[in-house]
Amino acid sequence: MEDALFSRDVAAANNIARPTGPLEEDPNLQEVINWFTKQPELERRFGQSIRQSIDEVLDGQRTGRFNIDELEKTEKTYLGTKVEIILRAEFRLGRGRDMDYSIATHEVDSKFTIGENWTIPGEADQHICLLARASDHKANYRAGLLRIHSEFLNAGKNRDGKRTLSTAGRSAVRWIIPDGKLPENILLTLSSEERAAIFNASAGHRSSGNGGQSRTNELFRRVQERLINRNTVLTVARQDDSPKRVRDARIHLRGDGIMILGHMKQHPHIARDLGLPVPDKGSWVAVRVAEVTASDSARRTTRISGKDYAIWQKGDRDDVAPAEY
Amino acid sequence: MEDALFSRDVAAANNIARPTGPLEEDPNLQEVINWFTKQPELERRFGQSIRQSIDEVLDGQRTGRFNIDELEKTEKTYLGTKVEIILRAEFRLGRGRDMDYSIATHEVDSKFTIGENWTIPGEADQHICLLARASDHKANYRAGLLRIHSEFLNAGKNRDGKRTLSTAGRSAVRWIIPDGKLPENILLTLSSEERAAIFNASAGHRSSGNGGQSRTNELFRRVQERLINRNTVLTVARQDDSPKRVRDARIHLRGDGIMILGHMKQHPHIARDLGLPVPDKGSWVAVRVAEVTASDSARRTTRISGKDYAIWQKGDRDDVAPAEY
Repeated sequence: MEDALFSRDVAAANNIARPTGPLEEDPNLQEVINWFTKQPELERRFGQSIRQSIDEVLDGQRTGRFNIDELEKTEKTYLGTKVEIILRAEFRLGRGRDMDYSIATHEVDSKFTIGENWTIPGEADQHICLLARASDHKANYRAGLLRIHSEFLNAGKNRDGKRTLSTAGRSAVRWIIPDGKLPENILLTLSSEERAAIFNASAGHRSSGNGGQSRTNELFRRVQERLINRNTVLTVARQDDSPKRVRDARIHLRGDGIMILGHMKQHPHIARDLGLPVPDKGSWVAVRVAEVTASDSARRTTRISGKDYAIWQKGDRDDVAPAEY
Repeated sequence: MEDALFSRDVAAANNIARPTGPLEEDPNLQEVINWFTKQPELERRFGQSIRQSIDEVLDGQRTGRFNIDELEKTEKTYLGTKVEIILRAEFRLGRGRDMDYSIATHEVDSKFTIGENWTIPGEADQHICLLARASDHKANYRAGLLRIHSEFLNAGKNRDGKRTLSTAGRSAVRWIIPDGKLPENILLTLSSEERAAIFNASAGHRSSGNGGQSRTNELFRRVQERLINRNTVLTVARQDDSPKRVRDARIHLRGDGIMILGHMKQHPHIARDLGLPVPDKGSWVAVRVAEVTASDSARRTTRISGKDYAIWQKGDRDDVAPAEY
């Protein structure tokens, strides 16, 4: 489904390339923008911070939740605070005197929304706001800066005396990340049938320990060639020790020809050989492989213990995965 | 400082031993009470759940906070939700149809406060509430059950239409844990001088890595013979890997005769020998030791690599701690 507001904003985001108009008279705002644009890996770190915030509030390990729509109202409110905390830690931001942050010596307030608009409190008037908005369903987010003026806000106030950003206000935002990629929420991207198969994989088990393992096995069986992070494993396993669940899944799935690659040993090297996403610490990628002869040069292969493996395709034999890799 | 309300409640808590009066006409409430009182290690697990909730919302690793008074309003509100989530996971409680939990087939709502009273929403009327209250400063908490009736609530409503429990309401609570011990928040118990010495121990360091280690060393140097948990180390170190910080502190403090005992190897055995609190997984206890002769029978000793050690006392030599234990 198309999101009209978001699309319109993307067009407005071209503002960032031509800082004309009121910005010329706001060197402080420009200094804050400059500070952000100079941060190494800004987009990746900002997106990872939002991902981590959402995952912590979902608390999948304890609740089994993976969909932000299931959060209670108090949790949605708190999510903004968690984003503020994680961004402060990630970018080592100072605390402001009156506002959340001190950035390039300027007071900056942090506002985050998973909805259509931001709600701005009266105290923020005349202050610079860092505005971030994320859609977990679309795996994207954007972040920008705006100095709040009354003409940028809609007239109506909510019960807390907060006002939403007007169309003029949204157009005036200087986007530092106009179209950021949010790390994928894998469980949200699956069909309900796939999810049911994973979450019900434990139905035959009495002990929750074995159940968590069965669900983890099914996750890696069904979600291949895509990065699966620690939080997804915790949400599926509902247990503490995600690396242990993954190590055991590696053993259980070997007979099905499935390898699970992490960030250790030769794993990143194997992932690169096969053209798979390369796992960082705390993420994994599963792949079904088949032994191939070296002469089969049309396919990407990787060599493990003297044998060549390619990603399994129709017509390949049903091989077991390598025992050690 | 004495807490009048809390003390009065403790007197009322004797109710639990004589379930007379309205309770006789409320077998459902009695079944919920019975369910809780049958849970193994109820008090320890309930207290640990509250401890964990407070620590997660403080988020000491990222914020350096250890005092609940520093929480923002949205965080204090969210704390109640976190307690609800962690209690549900710890006691494997089902979800209610209308209320938070289903316990012994009955609908039960979860209400937690760090203040003087609970705020009860209109929807809870006629429903059973699990009421918990904690004081991190006093390291205690209590939990009880009450079926909400209008006469148990004060007349005034807050902005959200919620009402506080009246004196009659508080007297009617059936306490399942009238005087629970909350695992200690070590940093909160230290004098501001001690805390400053720990948090400023990194002042000489440029890199935050070394700084976190210096602060961890100072923590274990200053807080001896008391359990220090993982969260306290994370709050002081402001880093991810608390076990690594502790292992390194063990090396750094050896020259000062300080041992750091965890839950592995002979550590719990050594702790018991010396009459120290015995660490579980994720907690440690530091102790300064001195070599003693076996004939010094008045003191508790432990034998490590053929030598006998006691807790250091005035008059003992300045020994180094054992290299391996």
